[in-house]
Amino acid sequence: MSALTLQTKNRCFNGEQRYYSHQSSVTNTEMSFSIYLPDEALAGQTCPALLYLSGLTCSPDNVTHKAHFQQKCSELGMIFIAPDTSPKGESVPNDERYFVGQGASYYVNATEDKWSKHFNMHSYIIDEFYELIRSQFAISSVGITGHSMGGHGALMFGFKYPSKFISVSAIAPVCVASESDWGRAAFSEYFGAESEQTWAQFDAVNIVEKAGKQYPFILVDQGAADDFYVDGYLRPEALQKVCQQVEQPLTLRYHAGFDHSYYFIQSIINDHIEHHYNAALTAI
Amino acid sequence: MSALTLQTKNRCFNGEQRYYSHQSSVTNTEMSFSIYLPDEALAGQTCPALLYLSGLTCSPDNVTHKAHFQQKCSELGMIFIAPDTSPKGESVPNDERYFVGQGASYYVNATEDKWSKHFNMHSYIIDEFYELIRSQFAISSVGITGHSMGGHGALMFGFKYPSKFISVSAIAPVCVASESDWGRAAFSEYFGAESEQTWAQFDAVNIVEKAGKQYPFILVDQGAADDFYVDGYLRPEALQKVCQQVEQPLTLRYHAGFDHSYYFIQSIINDHIEHHYNAALTAI
Repeated sequence: MSALTLQTKNRCFNGEQRYYSHQSSVTNTEMSFSIYLPDEALAGQTCPALLYLSGLTCSPDNVTHKAHFQQKCSELGMIFIAPDTSPKGESVPNDERYFVGQGASYYVNATEDKWSKHFNMHSYIIDEFYELIRSQFAISSVGITGHSMGGHGALMFGFKYPSKFISVSAIAPVCVASESDWGRAAFSEYFGAESEQTWAQFDAVNIVEKAGKQYPFILVDQGAADDFYVDGYLRPEALQKVCQQVEQPLTLRYHAGFDHSYYFIQSIINDHIEHHYNAALTAI
Repeated sequence: MSALTLQTKNRCFNGEQRYYSHQSSVTNTEMSFSIYLPDEALAGQTCPALLYLSGLTCSPDNVTHKAHFQQKCSELGMIFIAPDTSPKGESVPNDERYFVGQGASYYVNATEDKWSKHFNMHSYIIDEFYELIRSQFAISSVGITGHSMGGHGALMFGFKYPSKFISVSAIAPVCVASESDWGRAAFSEYFGAESEQTWAQFDAVNIVEKAGKQYPFILVDQGAADDFYVDGYLRPEALQKVCQQVEQPLTLRYHAGFDHSYYFIQSIINDHIEHHYNAALTAI
């Protein structure tokens, strides 16, 4: 286990917003993440944690600056952790399209030569990073959520590895990555175009279908005026259908007038924090 | 009065976060600002407004993305308006120091040739911009606040033009600009080094001393671990002294562990919004 390097810390409400970096042996790069530690955690108490996976183009900064989770996490005594969306840097391959390469890992392990040395975000998140945060911070349980591509990641990890998570939610998730223009471009790079028939195994809807019911209920929020929703990139109705099929209770809410931005995320993030906090409480 | 151009609008809580631009005849540039309009304002109801002046290096983005005012303004039905910190652009003079030139107007009217065509932020804010927002939006009253250099601006405008504002507050304000290293560098550019004996007329403390008591009370918050406070750039104790002298009630709070960043601002912004909202209510 590599050592953590504290990059910054700032007092925020009754807690601290921190950034750390560490050397990853899975992505073969330095990786950074943000973590909000409420005073309970700073005093050495064990606290529930929420893992947030960000969307395309994002670093940990976007959610840390714009999602406004700190106040609610301070009130409840909850840890909030945001890893990066991919390995990054000059030595890491990239693509000029914003939905492929750096900032666009889809949280999968790439098999194509160009990408496979660094783009192992699936193993990074679920093995190395998960073990890192559990060993370095006093965490009682971990919930998982995410936005857009990160919502795809939250559903994928939550239903593929239910023993690791107490609760799942998602904000405007990409529910069928292999059928979206974004995901098709990325998967053809990471896995090769000839493997197209296997891409669907990474789709949130197929993983939920295979896993069956895993949680008392999951929470998904979708802005009804979100262009990516309107244009079919997200497809929450496919998630709703598969949840009905496997009897996985789902609260799917549509919000009139809201788009895909962090202005939407900040407007509903408190409900997600409470969803995960309540699940953690129930599990005690 | 120049026309407003709507740049963006995003639904956020029960309201809309908007950005506008307009052509200023005072700064001789295009100027932009952000405005949060709660649903009451969107429905045509008259609402109280809070004008927020940002600090060094900022655009309207910093406070709009990072201060987290939208939720409380949505709850109370309050308009929140953030103008820019200076004229900007390739045709506008600048300086390599972050505390002089673009992003660092100190909200004064420059007299030196290099700056005087564009750097008229004093007249811009108190005349053109004030009239613009009052004519274009249904505003019942205006409170003024700001951070750092913007806290200097809020105190300066609030006590120089008390008929225009219902309430004043400030977050980590520069209280004696002409005696801070930042302000001395800027004022020597904007007014010329030979006019040094006149610079103090722009200091918040001197304007409060001259104006005397103007408000039932003013609210000032200061992070106790703020390096700029520790190093003497801000000097809230000088503001406290002059407020005692002129019997202007002041609530000056120090917050252990907090620094100069937006992590501090977001932690106390709700108290400022409520301060101004309560003043607006009392005035009805």
